[in-house]
Amino acid sequence: MKKEIKPYYHKIQYYETDGMRIVHHSNYIRWMEETRTDYLVQAGFPYDVLEERGILFPVLSVSCDYKTAVPFGGTVKIQMQLDWFDGLRYGVSYIMTDADDESIVHLTGTTTHCFLNKDLRPMRIKKEAPDVYQAFCEYANELRGMAAK
Amino acid sequence: MKKEIKPYYHKIQYYETDGMRIVHHSNYIRWMEETRTDYLVQAGFPYDVLEERGILFPVLSVSCDYKTAVPFGGTVKIQMQLDWFDGLRYGVSYIMTDADDESIVHLTGTTTHCFLNKDLRPMRIKKEAPDVYQAFCEYANELRGMAAK
Amino acid sequence: MKKEIKPYYHKIQYYETDGMRIVHHSNYIRWMEETRTDYLVQAGFPYDVLEERGILFPVLSVSCDYKTAVPFGGTVKIQMQLDWFDGLRYGVSYIMTDADDESIVHLTGTTTHCFLNKDLRPMRIKKEAPDVYQAFCEYANELRGMAAK
Amino acid sequence: MKKEIKPYYHKIQYYETDGMRIVHHSNYIRWMEETRTDYLVQAGFPYDVLEERGILFPVLSVSCDYKTAVPFGGTVKIQMQLDWFDGLRYGVSYIMTDADDESIVHLTGTTTHCFLNKDLRPMRIKKEAPDVYQAFCEYANELRGMAAK
Repeated sequence: MKKEIKPYYHKIQYYETDGMRIVHHSNYIRWMEETRTDYLVQAGFPYDVLEERGILFPVLSVSCDYKTAVPFGGTVKIQMQLDWFDGLRYGVSYIMTDADDESIVHLTGTTTHCFLNKDLRPMRIKKEAPDVYQAFCEYANELRGMAAK
Repeated sequence: MKKEIKPYYHKIQYYETDGMRIVHHSNYIRWMEETRTDYLVQAGFPYDVLEERGILFPVLSVSCDYKTAVPFGGTVKIQMQLDWFDGLRYGVSYIMTDADDESIVHLTGTTTHCFLNKDLRPMRIKKEAPDVYQAFCEYANELRGMAAK
Repeated sequence: MKKEIKPYYHKIQYYETDGMRIVHHSNYIRWMEETRTDYLVQAGFPYDVLEERGILFPVLSVSCDYKTAVPFGGTVKIQMQLDWFDGLRYGVSYIMTDADDESIVHLTGTTTHCFLNKDLRPMRIKKEAPDVYQAFCEYANELRGMAAK
Repeated sequence: MKKEIKPYYHKIQYYETDGMRIVHHSNYIRWMEETRTDYLVQAGFPYDVLEERGILFPVLSVSCDYKTAVPFGGTVKIQMQLDWFDGLRYGVSYIMTDADDESIVHLTGTTTHCFLNKDLRPMRIKKEAPDVYQAFCEYANELRGMAAK
């Protein structure tokens, strides 16, 4: 996968606000998904194509720390990175800031994922989708290289 | 299908409110679906069972008139009825009021639907799902009887 | 308001799909709102600024005709126009097509709106927000001019 | 607050499913909110009444472990408990199972919350809402008593 990930931008929609006049906390979970989807396009593996090949990446866990509220009218910038990949599962982390001012952090979060086939059964991507496996490995290697410096 | 339809009640959730501190208008469309789903259970044809049999009822059109806003904390009462059925399509109408005071009308709306099979192709339910066809006919006949009185 | 409205594009998100593997019909209502919000930015009247001035545009009615399903992975193009404006209310119409192929129409729809103040009471924008009133009039005049040709 | 909390039940809606034909993971976050709202009614402090008094409980963090997928047609049972309360913040945990078979665990999760006033500023509920403070203390004491046995 590509090492340089362009950040993802999401413009706040009115239907995403709640009675406190700020974004409802459940929406951030959705924007984390938007960010992953956008990344997969950047990496050359659009999720709809993977899904057609029978490769699903369901979410195993989510954690979010809500730092500052997001008001309607703004745009958030979300940066994600692959934290780890062990062949069967992987972890992603996210930082969400104001689009114009990165010192305003709205959220930090993580998700973990596994690989399932169309019948929602675990999938060994090394064997069943070697190109996807390879891409994950390359990205993980880069991360190790960066960490070693 | 059963002629007497118990009304459906929906308790307003916080995540359904928006920055105006009232329910966002897109949610009513979802409650109309909740009402249909509840009705199908009452009629002995739960939607998940129909779906497993390969019978889908997608929405062809929606119309809503928003009469009065619904604040958080309340409960709405939704009454639906089958307006027409011609063997290939059907129309449903809805009236949504305060749960305790029917003189407070929040919304009137309609939806139309067709029958599709699992491949999202039109389905002749008279032939392919005669029990469902029969139930629709009986309900439509009752309506005609009621109208004739 | 500006006469030339740039169309609005919405990339389909996974969380917008349903068990039929197509976009759930309630989401189109939200994209119509996204389109209006985007238009107001184009017209120089961002909705968050209007809201801060105490001008709200709630939805009075919605109607949608669902023409063809939208699968995950695609992008839709939404074109809206002001259909009428009488000083107290206005109507908008929408056509939603595939982003790349306008011959694939997914939806046609309309919404109507009124003007409310922060206390959710009717507002005479001619008096209370003359710049907004003016912008609506200019746009409506242009429409008439176009119709007259 | 009441020590015995009746579990909360949520019937899965079609609009909550996604293209994998199971509930989209973002919805569980919403059901955790539904459970808290239901609990506050049981405890005699409905959230809409608290909100009118200017007491808000925003979410500071969320964590979820997704154990097994929830298909359309089912009903989930959610049991929550107050894990801790220090006067300024509190933590809640949740276990979500099949409504009929508690051995099928769908999710375990936690949320943390603080108290804000209407201007979204921190609130000392001991001073500003002593009845709410008292209720939290009693519930926390009970928990300690139960833990000591």
